[in-house]
Amino acid sequence: MPVLYDRVALIGLGLIASSMAHAMREKGLAREIVGYARSAETRAAARELFCDRVTETAADAVDGADLVVLAVPVGAMGDIAVEIGPRLKAGTTVTDVGSVKQAVIDAVVPHLPDGVHFIAGHPIAGTEHSGPRSGFATLFVNRWWLLTPMEGADPAAVSRLRALCEGMGAKVDEMDAAHHDLVLAVTSHTPHLIAYTMVGVADDLSRVTDSEVINYSAAGFRDFTRIAASDPTMWRDVFLTNKEATLEILGRFTEELFALQRAIRLGDGDHLHAYFTRTRAIRRSIIEAGQDTAAPDFGRAAVAAKGD
Amino acid sequence: MPVLYDRVALIGLGLIASSMAHAMREKGLAREIVGYARSAETRAAARELFCDRVTETAADAVDGADLVVLAVPVGAMGDIAVEIGPRLKAGTTVTDVGSVKQAVIDAVVPHLPDGVHFIAGHPIAGTEHSGPRSGFATLFVNRWWLLTPMEGADPAAVSRLRALCEGMGAKVDEMDAAHHDLVLAVTSHTPHLIAYTMVGVADDLSRVTDSEVINYSAAGFRDFTRIAASDPTMWRDVFLTNKEATLEILGRFTEELFALQRAIRLGDGDHLHAYFTRTRAIRRSIIEAGQDTAAPDFGRAAVAAKGD
Repeated sequence: MPVLYDRVALIGLGLIASSMAHAMREKGLAREIVGYARSAETRAAARELFCDRVTETAADAVDGADLVVLAVPVGAMGDIAVEIGPRLKAGTTVTDVGSVKQAVIDAVVPHLPDGVHFIAGHPIAGTEHSGPRSGFATLFVNRWWLLTPMEGADPAAVSRLRALCEGMGAKVDEMDAAHHDLVLAVTSHTPHLIAYTMVGVADDLSRVTDSEVINYSAAGFRDFTRIAASDPTMWRDVFLTNKEATLEILGRFTEELFALQRAIRLGDGDHLHAYFTRTRAIRRSIIEAGQDTAAPDFGRAAVAAKGD
Repeated sequence: MPVLYDRVALIGLGLIASSMAHAMREKGLAREIVGYARSAETRAAARELFCDRVTETAADAVDGADLVVLAVPVGAMGDIAVEIGPRLKAGTTVTDVGSVKQAVIDAVVPHLPDGVHFIAGHPIAGTEHSGPRSGFATLFVNRWWLLTPMEGADPAAVSRLRALCEGMGAKVDEMDAAHHDLVLAVTSHTPHLIAYTMVGVADDLSRVTDSEVINYSAAGFRDFTRIAASDPTMWRDVFLTNKEATLEILGRFTEELFALQRAIRLGDGDHLHAYFTRTRAIRRSIIEAGQDTAAPDFGRAAVAAKGD
């Protein structure tokens, strides 16, 4: 594949940034990858594993870069923009990989000089692991990467960034930032909050021991623990910055939950059966769309057995 | 392994029963496996795949059996017990594989003749698939199988059944039926209800299209759809028969959810961060206990990529 950017600066070197670096290197999409992270340990890992050069400040990292990727928690984006803004050259594209888009645009754009293209983005990919050693080149393959360019965004800059995402194996879609935040409140933010809550309840319950919860988790609970194992700082920031949409979807959720709870209390089996039948069709569509594997139990039964 | 039962009758031939049949055959644990299911199609599949003999009625299936396994939805156990009771010989062990234990004991025991040993059981294993073609011999390997024998149960009958479960690869634990139902309300029943609810909400929301929900599900939602794809009849019965424990845990869940919702509304990031940090430890324990794989994303990222 052709080199798309001469120098890419990654600010923040966790799961997403390290996976981007591995993918860009493997596909030859960038001539040089420069990295910065706050922690010295992370910087050392990045130097060893996937960065051509690592700097001691974010401002130094963006020097001469034609693409800057902000891959820090959403709540830290504004401060980074303040720091790097004066060092950005005209024509540079700045993007981010945060899970919330409107709040990032609001925090970042005021601090960028004229002639810099800010195109917010969000790769819908990830695992429950974090940090510079958790990245891998195929993380984005067959996953969606949403871009939310603002009105009047430079078409050439957008299409170059799109080519980069596609070069790493992703499928790209463009949408409005506010709509993105609502969609993600449904498909990601509310499910995460619910999973965190359920895991917290289990941990709290004095009449059921921790070892019982752990041993008998294969009955459903363990799927919740996977998503409740994600990075706490990232998720705190998601909920603080996508407050309105999350609260709206949570309201819908509790309304429906109360209706099902009432059906249980009243012994209304028909209501329950109809509800549970409807949800099966969605699962089938997700598998057909290539967004999950059809292997039973995600294929993990065999994995666990092997390690036995 | 030694033959443990001369003739095993499987009543109901779905995921669990078919997996038991495959496992018993592979390990030589039963001399003959007889099966019955209500649907002619299921009976034909069982005859083809894993049963030595298939009968047209449940009563015929249990004739001369020394182990009878009730593997029908919890709500159907009572009727089956009425039908097979008169045909059971003294000394036969009857067990079940339902997800709720007290309600099954209450429904089944009154219809069994003296001299028959009823030992309720629950394998904590399963996938989101159902039916006679979904079973496989390793389903129970490294999984827990809970037995809830009643007071005064025959020790020899319990230990023979335990040996069968262990012979299929499971780890066995014994507990009181009521305690079982509370533990499972935490680790299985409430998580399933929540997953069903979240999937239903997503399906209902007119401002977000179905294809958006499906395409962007990799961000967390798809884990919910897997467990919300389970058999609707089975789950209806679980909630109707484990009503009290499920409602209790649901009450705890909504209480905690409201506290987190309030923290979001008030912008209390410290509360959120502390909560999300605590839940990570539970995930680690589940992996250490061998109840899930530590592979990122259940190892499925690579699977999905391969199919691309």
